[in-house]
This record gives sequence, C-alpha cells and structure tokens, in this order.
Amino acid sequence: MYSRNDIVTHILKNKNNTPKPASSLCFAPANIALVKYWGKRNTELNLPITSSLSVSLGEFGTKTQVLLSNKDELIINNQKFASNTEAMQRLIKFLDLFRQTNNQYFKVECTSNIPMAAGLASSSAAFASIVQALNDLYQWQLPMSKLSILARIGSGSACRSLWQGFVKWQKGKRKDGMDSYATPLAQTWPDLRIGLLICDSQPKAISSREAMEITKRTALCYKLWPQNVKESMPLVEKAIAEHNFALLGQTAEHNALTMHAYMLAAAPTICYFSPRTIEIFHKIWGLRKEGMNLYFTQDAGANVKLIFQQQDAEFLQKTFPEIKIINPFI
Amino acid sequence: MYSRNDIVTHILKNKNNTPKPASSLCFAPANIALVKYWGKRNTELNLPITSSLSVSLGEFGTKTQVLLSNKDELIINNQKFASNTEAMQRLIKFLDLFRQTNNQYFKVECTSNIPMAAGLASSSAAFASIVQALNDLYQWQLPMSKLSILARIGSGSACRSLWQGFVKWQKGKRKDGMDSYATPLAQTWPDLRIGLLICDSQPKAISSREAMEITKRTALCYKLWPQNVKESMPLVEKAIAEHNFALLGQTAEHNALTMHAYMLAAAPTICYFSPRTIEIFHKIWGLRKEGMNLYFTQDAGANVKLIFQQQDAEFLQKTFPEIKIINPFI
Repeated sequence: MYSRNDIVTHILKNKNNTPKPASSLCFAPANIALVKYWGKRNTELNLPITSSLSVSLGEFGTKTQVLLSNKDELIINNQKFASNTEAMQRLIKFLDLFRQTNNQYFKVECTSNIPMAAGLASSSAAFASIVQALNDLYQWQLPMSKLSILARIGSGSACRSLWQGFVKWQKGKRKDGMDSYATPLAQTWPDLRIGLLICDSQPKAISSREAMEITKRTALCYKLWPQNVKESMPLVEKAIAEHNFALLGQTAEHNALTMHAYMLAAAPTICYFSPRTIEIFHKIWGLRKEGMNLYFTQDAGANVKLIFQQQDAEFLQKTFPEIKIINPFI
Repeated sequence: MYSRNDIVTHILKNKNNTPKPASSLCFAPANIALVKYWGKRNTELNLPITSSLSVSLGEFGTKTQVLLSNKDELIINNQKFASNTEAMQRLIKFLDLFRQTNNQYFKVECTSNIPMAAGLASSSAAFASIVQALNDLYQWQLPMSKLSILARIGSGSACRSLWQGFVKWQKGKRKDGMDSYATPLAQTWPDLRIGLLICDSQPKAISSREAMEITKRTALCYKLWPQNVKESMPLVEKAIAEHNFALLGQTAEHNALTMHAYMLAAAPTICYFSPRTIEIFHKIWGLRKEGMNLYFTQDAGANVKLIFQQQDAEFLQKTFPEIKIINPFI
C-alpha cells in the first residue's frame, strides 16, 4: 500500500524545494461528468474503480493564489474558514504533503464563481487550482499528468479540472496510481450547453465520499457498475466524435440515473433526489416526448444539470427562469 | 409452451359445466407486497421470476358478483365500462377461458372500496374476487391453490389476494406453473398497520406489466433481482415469525427501493416517483432519524404505503392528515 506521501515524494523527487513568497493566480474550471466516477479501488489515493469523462464549465470555476504564511489559512470569497471546519482540516492534510520544512505554512486564497450549492463539484475546481498554484509557487514545472495525479490525491474528480472541454480520467491499473490521471480530448462542441438548475441549496446530507463507500459496500448491484461504465464510455466518446447529440444525452442521462439507482439500492439507502429534482425530471421527459432534444445529468446533490444545444437555449431560459446556462466551449 | 387455455382446461377437467344464473357476492382484499413481484419468466401465464410475500388490506378490496348475461359487461362501482376500454378487453380475454358454449356471456359487477388511484393493486382484488365468483357460479369447488392459479392467470399478484393476512406466492419451477401459487402464512400481527398516502391521482404513465418487461430486458442490474429477493425473503419471514418490526420495515423498504432502483436503471428509465413521493420519503427518513419506527413500501405508482405499529397511528394521522390507516388483522 502506497501512502499519499509516498506518491508526492516520488513525483517531487529532484524538484525545487524553495518556494516563492506567492504564486500567481491560477484558475481551474468546475467539471461535470457525463460518465460518472463512482467508487474507489483505493481510498487513500482516490484511485477509481472505473474511468470517467467530463466536460468543464468554462468560466465557472475557482481562482486560487497560494502564499507563504506563518500559519495555514483558507479564504474562499473573502470568507475565512475556522481551523475546525471540515474544509480546513482537509486542506491542512493536503498541504502537509508539500511542506518542505516544519514551520512552512500557507495562505490559500480562493475566489469561486460556482454557485456554492450542493453537488456542483466545487472541491474539484478548488483542488485543481490549488495544485496549479503550488506548482507555480515552487516552480516545479510538472507535466500536466503529474499535476492531475496531485489534484486527484486532493479530491478524485479534481484531476479532470485542469483542462477546459472534454476530459477523460483513465482509471489506470497500477497500485501506486501513476497511470491514473486525466487527459483532455481534442474534440470541441461549440453548440453544446449545460444548464444548472439549483434544486436544493441546503448542504447535502451525506458527502459523495461517504456515499460512494456505502454504495460499494452495501449495494449488490454496484458490482455491475464497471460494466455500466464500459457500455457508456465508448458511446459518449462516439457521440462526441460524431457530434451525435441524442446519443450523448441519452447515454449521459442513463449513466447518471444508473449511478443514482445503485445508491437507492444501498443499505441504508442514499437518495440525492429532492421533490424539485423529480419535478424537473418529469418536466424534461415531458419536453422530450414533445420532440425536444433535452437530457440531464445529476451528481451527488439534488441539483439537475441540463444537457442541450444552443438552439434551445432561449426556450429553456423561459421554461426555467432560474437556469444558469453555461457554454463550455466559449 | 403452455397456453392459458391449456392450464384452465387442465384445472377444470371433470368439473361441472353448468353455471347457476348468478354467483354469490365474493370479496377479495387488495394486497401490498413486502417482498415484491417484479419480472415474469412467462408472460402468458404470469409466472414470476421470484417468489413474493404480501399482506392483505383487510376490508379494503373488491366485492364481485358474476351473472350469466346475453353479452359481456363490466360494472365497477355502478359505472359501466365500454367494450373498447383496456379493462374490458382484458376481462373479455379472461372470461373467454371459462365459457362453456359459444354464446355464454357474463355480467361482472364489482364494488371496490380501494382508493382507485394509481398503484393500489386494484386489479389484484378484482381478479381474485372474479375467480371466486366464477368458482361459485359453476360450483367447481376448486381447492384454494387452483383458485390462486386461475387468479394469477388473470393478474399475477391477484393470486395473493385470496386470503387475509400474510400471503406468500411461491414462484414454482414447472413450465405449466402448476406449482406457482400463493398460500397464507399462519402468523398474525395485530399491531401492524399500513398507511396509504396518495401522491398522485393521475393514472400511471406506464403499466406495471410493461414496466416489468422493460426492466427485465434493459436494466443490467435486473439479473441480480432474484438474489435480492433471496436475501429479503428469509428476513421478512423471520421478522414476521418474531414480530421484529424494525427488521420487517427495513427489509420491506430496502426491497421496494431496490425494485425502483432497477427501474431507474432501465432504458428508457422508469420513474414512479412524483415530487410528493420524494417529499414523503425524506419526511419518513427524518422521523426515523428522530427515533420513530416508521418504514414504507412503494409499488408501480407514485403512492407511498407506510408500515408502522398501532402505537404510532395517532401521531401519523396528525402528521399526514390525508393518510388512510389500515389494520390488516382486524
């Protein structure tokens, strides 16, 4: 078993140890998986059981600067986090991997324009931008694959937030996870749109980290998840290559619903649906019956992410006045 | 492959062919499965892939009288069904199995006190009572196991509606289904209560018959359903034997959620949740967190069926003013 420290030490071997006083501002977009990451083969290193594929959210993400300091600090959108918060604890543990001396501390300043409600993958953009800022602070000049591994160690899906556009995270096979990182896909899709619909602004009752473990441990059907992904992945890749929108939407929606199905089948059950989530599902299925090319995906939170094409943006803005429309390929 | 006609002919061999002018009034209760019937190994004979176990709903059910007539007629709660309705088509096909001469027709008069909204298994009580009425009309004096088989041929879960209390439907192994019928359990549970919560009075978008087939054909996880039932069944039987309420509730809820999970994982997806369904789920889970012994089950419709004990009836009547509380062992 490799520890996170083993991996970081290995990646930073022969790298510069002397940080600048402050990094430049580094931006990482949030990302939304079209083929989901659900379940770890190694919880220490966040090594996934399956590969996954996402699309990044363009200008929606997190901008981070890391500065040397006399104590660890986390500031998000000008709000300072107390040291006993979960976010701060998680960050300190992560920073521990990079300190070169015992009294080296960091001030981490993040600005996020991601709607901060549940299930919008804000930790992905945060850890991806922190890793980029650390790379700049120490001037390691690491290749992107290594940055992706470091981001993954912070938060699994953060490894996909280092690029815009479509990004695939190869699960890898190695025990040390050195082959488990993301790479961007060459294809773009200028007409593709993602629509965020906030369904519940309360913090989620259970973290995705915990939910994954319960699903894996207790849902009989979870053992079929790798096969589900094996079916979804080539279809999504084909859809992207051919700009086959219906295939993309169908496959992404089916993949997401299968993930939520497997959570419902866990014991105790895990249900990220809110009444509004289900209301939106039925609305989408109704519009699709009427001929609209409209699909959705959902992550570990109540919010729904619509998948559609530019031509329907105006109609959907009217239908869902609260929608936040994102053009991933701007 | 046996036809429905083969089976009925076999069961009625050497039985009386001459009907009385009218049967007596025959009552059958509705029933709610604690271990669900989901998926057929034979759609012609309604032979199930798994066994199932239900509790009958006491005085809630259907009273039926069958009379000889000069044409087929179906009257439910004083309302006559037109011959082009689905219910009438289904009934005519069923009656075809029993006619002894070409011009023998039946008037079927049902009175039901089951809330007629979606997913309350009204066809189970109807077919169970019709079979009892036919047994009386022809004075076949068939054993209950044979009546259960005839009811099953009308509507799968109707085979469980011939008794009050807990009823188990053995899936059987034979191709002709002569070993696939229900039998009552000896145990009673005077404190057990079922609470009906109507969540959507609209007719369901997809029949359970169709939904079962789509799940079986398209959901990868459906192949695990027999194993799920194999796990649930002995737990529910143990809970009934020992009056272990938490075990009964947990297992029934998990079994129902697993069934709905597998529907969600079908393609196209099947979702019987309405926004209100999900609202009630969260309410129940919240009350449980606060220490209440409250569980639910759900069938192929949006309605939620609470499972609780007499001691909580008053509280739940206040919490859900619209609830219909049923005492199965009155």
